[in-house]
Amino acid sequence: MTGLHQRIQRTIRHEALLPAGSRVVVGVSGGADSVALLHLLLDLSARGEFSVAGLAHFNHQLRPTADRDEDFCRDLAATLRLEIAVERGNVAAYARQETLSVEDAARRLRYRFLEEVASRWSADRIAVGHTVDDQAETVLLKLIRGAGLTGLGGVSPRRGRVVRPLLGVAKRELVAYLQGRQAAWLEDETNADLANPRNRLRHLVLPELERAYPGAARSLARAADASRADAELLEAEAEALYEALARPTPTGVEIDAGPLTAAPAAIVRRVLLKAMRAVCGNREIGLDHIRAAEDVLAGSCAGTDVPGARWELRRKKLVLSQQGRGRSDTLTE
Amino acid sequence: MTGLHQRIQRTIRHEALLPAGSRVVVGVSGGADSVALLHLLLDLSARGEFSVAGLAHFNHQLRPTADRDEDFCRDLAATLRLEIAVERGNVAAYARQETLSVEDAARRLRYRFLEEVASRWSADRIAVGHTVDDQAETVLLKLIRGAGLTGLGGVSPRRGRVVRPLLGVAKRELVAYLQGRQAAWLEDETNADLANPRNRLRHLVLPELERAYPGAARSLARAADASRADAELLEAEAEALYEALARPTPTGVEIDAGPLTAAPAAIVRRVLLKAMRAVCGNREIGLDHIRAAEDVLAGSCAGTDVPGARWELRRKKLVLSQQGRGRSDTLTE
Repeated sequence: MTGLHQRIQRTIRHEALLPAGSRVVVGVSGGADSVALLHLLLDLSARGEFSVAGLAHFNHQLRPTADRDEDFCRDLAATLRLEIAVERGNVAAYARQETLSVEDAARRLRYRFLEEVASRWSADRIAVGHTVDDQAETVLLKLIRGAGLTGLGGVSPRRGRVVRPLLGVAKRELVAYLQGRQAAWLEDETNADLANPRNRLRHLVLPELERAYPGAARSLARAADASRADAELLEAEAEALYEALARPTPTGVEIDAGPLTAAPAAIVRRVLLKAMRAVCGNREIGLDHIRAAEDVLAGSCAGTDVPGARWELRRKKLVLSQQGRGRSDTLTE
Repeated sequence: MTGLHQRIQRTIRHEALLPAGSRVVVGVSGGADSVALLHLLLDLSARGEFSVAGLAHFNHQLRPTADRDEDFCRDLAATLRLEIAVERGNVAAYARQETLSVEDAARRLRYRFLEEVASRWSADRIAVGHTVDDQAETVLLKLIRGAGLTGLGGVSPRRGRVVRPLLGVAKRELVAYLQGRQAAWLEDETNADLANPRNRLRHLVLPELERAYPGAARSLARAADASRADAELLEAEAEALYEALARPTPTGVEIDAGPLTAAPAAIVRRVLLKAMRAVCGNREIGLDHIRAAEDVLAGSCAGTDVPGARWELRRKKLVLSQQGRGRSDTLTE
């Protein structure tokens, strides 16, 4: 047991990631994070508290190296005498079909596959290799893409069957660990493509930030942790107020303006966002739209257009109505 | 009136920064941000809604160029036929005396001087040149230094007499504006010293982030805006619960454990932090200490030491007691 094993053991206990007797499927891409996760969990499972059901590899068929990655994982499973489940997904086609980004499509198909393998193998947990660096990256992306609305996000240590025992560990620690035990892993080549903004963030911005402030990635990850509890509470309070004040109309919703005005700004903003999410369909709502709605509520403007709808103040009701057609289709969904 | 003037005018109105008839002192360092602020406010003051009382320059006596900077500001005031107030502060000595970082000491002395000038000139507002880039920098710093506890921070558009009309404007827009009107400004040489982490953040990390995601700085600044309202609400709720549940003891505080356990995690964390801020003096409290206190509250450990004090659960009370001396000195402060 190295210090790394002990830290991960502590995370597993503190966050109750792997209850006594649980069987865990390990998602393995072949990269350092997931290969290290597999070795570490196998070591820790020797104590008999949980067992590794096997490993699951999703072949995204997106990179030139996809088949090499799959072969590596099959060999790894054979060497470790573990079950392996492999699926080849057509991510590009699925992304087109569902109008998702390739990244989102890949994630959905991958988790769907992992869940399916867990059910097939009667496993109650799925472990994936998110590190503190992934978490820091997620926080920065979230900030850039509008954290004003929903908090810093970051992935949870546990969500349903999926657990992330490495959220407190840096990728470089995992690489050092693999080197120390002379274990092989695959370098992810597309990660190095600096035309991709996310790769620029990962390979240029975050390392530079860590050079200026050692430990920065860990701090970003912790901020996400704390922010998650904050966001949940504010969301629950906003949900309660929305339920109390909002009534459906034939073309949208109306909200009692008096009690809404009396609520704190943090709650008002979330109530306005809820209304727009309900009425505007999948259209993108930003802080600007919330601010414009706040101006209508304050009476400083008579009405304002937001994507697919319009806010107006009518007889003490703040009214959001769909625009561009007589009645709502999305409301009856 | 350029588009830039109009945007700043809108910010001034929307945030009610300069009420009708107000007199504003402009803090000017000689750098692009504050020089542009001065020109822009002078232009906007021509409408008669507010007036510029003069400019104030604080000579920090920290840089080799400090006296050149002061001369530049005196010349600028003479050219524009404006009053100027100058003070030379011994920032280094003040920082030693108050055990502050040089940065914090400089800020305190500067704002104290600005307030003093405003009073002397019967001005009701002090304008300073914070830009969207400064705000983004503040957010990242806050995240790195433990935003988990108190939100993303960021400076407010207005606090007391101090107003920041440029919070929505990027520094490069101000430079372009000054170039357009052929106005002079000073380049800040110490800013370019990359041994300073903050300068690495400013000159390497943020520009790289902006290259990967154009508009990133603005998004960070907006996230801070939104987060401020969230933090205020959670803080108010935690304050109310603390008042209701915490009682002073001879060596610290005790909190009713039952109702505290029932509160949401976001509030519990802030209540625990409040207790430690009250009992542990000026010692630095981090997320780890809060987490340890949560473990005591949950009964998963009997007691835990935090800087200068110890948490224990005794007969349904969560007790925080100062350690290392019989009675509290800091509590009677």
